Amino acid sequence: MSDSPVANQTVSISLGERSYPIRIGTRLFDQADTYAHIGSSAQAVVVTNTTVGPLYAARLQAALQLRHRQVQVVTLPDGEAFKTWESLNHLFDAVLAAECDRKTVFYALGGGVVGDMTGFAAACYMRGVPFVQVPTTLLAQVDSSVGGKTAINHPLGKNMIGAFYQPQLVVCDLDTLQTLPPRELSAGLAEVIKYGPIADMTFLSWIEANLDTLLERDPQALAYAVRRSCEIKAWVVGQDERETGLRAILNFGHTFGHAIEAGLGYGEWLHGEAVGCGMVMAAHLSAEMGLVPSTFVERLTALVRASGLPVTAPMLDPQDNAGRYLALMRVDKKAEAGAIRFIVVDGLGNACLRAADDLVVRRVIERCSLVQQKA
Amino acid sequence: MSDSPVANQTVSISLGERSYPIRIGTRLFDQADTYAHIGSSAQAVVVTNTTVGPLYAARLQAALQLRHRQVQVVTLPDGEAFKTWESLNHLFDAVLAAECDRKTVFYALGGGVVGDMTGFAAACYMRGVPFVQVPTTLLAQVDSSVGGKTAINHPLGKNMIGAFYQPQLVVCDLDTLQTLPPRELSAGLAEVIKYGPIADMTFLSWIEANLDTLLERDPQALAYAVRRSCEIKAWVVGQDERETGLRAILNFGHTFGHAIEAGLGYGEWLHGEAVGCGMVMAAHLSAEMGLVPSTFVERLTALVRASGLPVTAPMLDPQDNAGRYLALMRVDKKAEAGAIRFIVVDGLGNACLRAADDLVVRRVIERCSLVQQKA
Repeated sequence: MSDSPVANQTVSISLGERSYPIRIGTRLFDQADTYAHIGSSAQAVVVTNTTVGPLYAARLQAALQLRHRQVQVVTLPDGEAFKTWESLNHLFDAVLAAECDRKTVFYALGGGVVGDMTGFAAACYMRGVPFVQVPTTLLAQVDSSVGGKTAINHPLGKNMIGAFYQPQLVVCDLDTLQTLPPRELSAGLAEVIKYGPIADMTFLSWIEANLDTLLERDPQALAYAVRRSCEIKAWVVGQDERETGLRAILNFGHTFGHAIEAGLGYGEWLHGEAVGCGMVMAAHLSAEMGLVPSTFVERLTALVRASGLPVTAPMLDPQDNAGRYLALMRVDKKAEAGAIRFIVVDGLGNACLRAADDLVVRRVIERCSLVQQKA
Repeated sequence: MSDSPVANQTVSISLGERSYPIRIGTRLFDQADTYAHIGSSAQAVVVTNTTVGPLYAARLQAALQLRHRQVQVVTLPDGEAFKTWESLNHLFDAVLAAECDRKTVFYALGGGVVGDMTGFAAACYMRGVPFVQVPTTLLAQVDSSVGGKTAINHPLGKNMIGAFYQPQLVVCDLDTLQTLPPRELSAGLAEVIKYGPIADMTFLSWIEANLDTLLERDPQALAYAVRRSCEIKAWVVGQDERETGLRAILNFGHTFGHAIEAGLGYGEWLHGEAVGCGMVMAAHLSAEMGLVPSTFVERLTALVRASGLPVTAPMLDPQDNAGRYLALMRVDKKAEAGAIRFIVVDGLGNACLRAADDLVVRRVIERCSLVQQKA
């Protein structure tokens, strides 16, 4: 992997007795020392998928065998379409057959799907076992592995069944990003970009200035992008672990994005792709509400497009496209008493949750779809 | 229902911000006032089963309609055999189809199975919604509805998939016990009896002295049995919510009991029946360890039998019965690194968790089965 001299860094998530470190750097995930503060229980399970497993599972297993007597690897199918109860049950079958007790440590080795499912499995197995996130995608390193949101999908909605359950450690090894397919790298950038409009416009400017370097996978640039993203996420999660308020801002672009994912069928677009397009739509909505000027919408659209992400809303229903989006968004977790609520931004690095009139939302969906027809 | 002058009482579970009251009395569950401190969200769901629903669901629904705009009733099949992911998913389908948001209150109306499943569904739905326990069986009123243990079964083990998730209120309406089948009443007595050996031998003596009155469903006697059971459970759970130590004593009789339930197939014996027999077996094990005299074993056996509960271990495998018990118990949640651990008692109202030699456990299983052959 990379020979870069990136210094290893730690960002802390402060949640009282549920606090934990995020370790960021190179040559991390396959070193037993990385896991020094994790209890050396007799058993451990590495959960991975058919893509990541062949690349990294044996190295993680070897490192963990210095700490646990038995280290089982469970390989799940790859992709959002498999973030289901069936996959989860396959994992439960495996750990129960191996007689894993309630001190068994679950290690999630992979992207957001593996992390969300392993975390939820750890939350539920025997009512809770310790777990460690070893995210191998940019998206998982900057977002999904941090903060304790775990879940599986339901045919009627994404991440509908889940738990707030914090890991004991997150290990972001930048080396693993070198093997990431370009499409996955772009998907991860969507969640990096997100932190700009909701919290730090200086960071947004930095991303714009360093986008090419990031796309070339320069370890120094990636290290900074991961660290700054984790810092912002840690700041938000530290104030509102269970999303009673502030934490919802991390969902910028996600209300539209989840509708795209559910409407196209999970896995058709990557989560990050849907979020990229969803942020453009949410920026349009913010403009409709008079919160940002059109120049902000154009700026964000340009950055999302340059990151290799879609910026036009896909057709979900030729009869009534906007109606289909609205129906899908009405089951969003932020909705209350049937009213859909969106994260909107002010162009200065602040975001908030707002209900929007269906007519306004329809206009946004139509405008974001029209762009596609012109292109 | 009963015209008894039982005064309504409250036992509190003290768990900081997760504290909640257990209300015990008559004419409680169908009064809107009973739920006064629950948030009056727009939506509510009453989860019940095909046995309890026809008796009480409409009355609860009517009371709740004074507090929530929409009160949906979801009816699950009755019995431990249905404490599965499939039933849970049926519930998720219903609440998602009704576009229930994350302030929706889930009400569990039924016995332990309904309570465990509703609690787990509430823990997972949108990563956690409020819930209320309205237990209608003695077993649920004295044990399963209190303390936040929620779960579903897995073919390889009982309650293997679950969460610690506290309700906001428990409503023990003694009137509902009047319609309980005799077999269910006896099953509930098993969990009442349990509190004696693990915490309060004076209470055990009271149960012995009042067993006939309890079996006749005298409201005063039932009220005391429920209250004292809840007090002991509250004391234990208040000290150890997530079962890192003390709480395990509530599992007296359950290690053997769970093996019986899983080995016979869920639903063959009621949970309380398996626990009754399991307590007799655990008493024998305590005697084998020299912790109690044989007179204690005889005393407990007599009380369990007089309560209408089985005291002899069923045959799970004609080839190697004890081996089958041991295999089933090795996946018990209290097992650690393959060693099965049992709750044993000292005959003075104290209990502790102890590993036991397989040979000793085999002897106990054989002795408890032999009794059956003699009978």
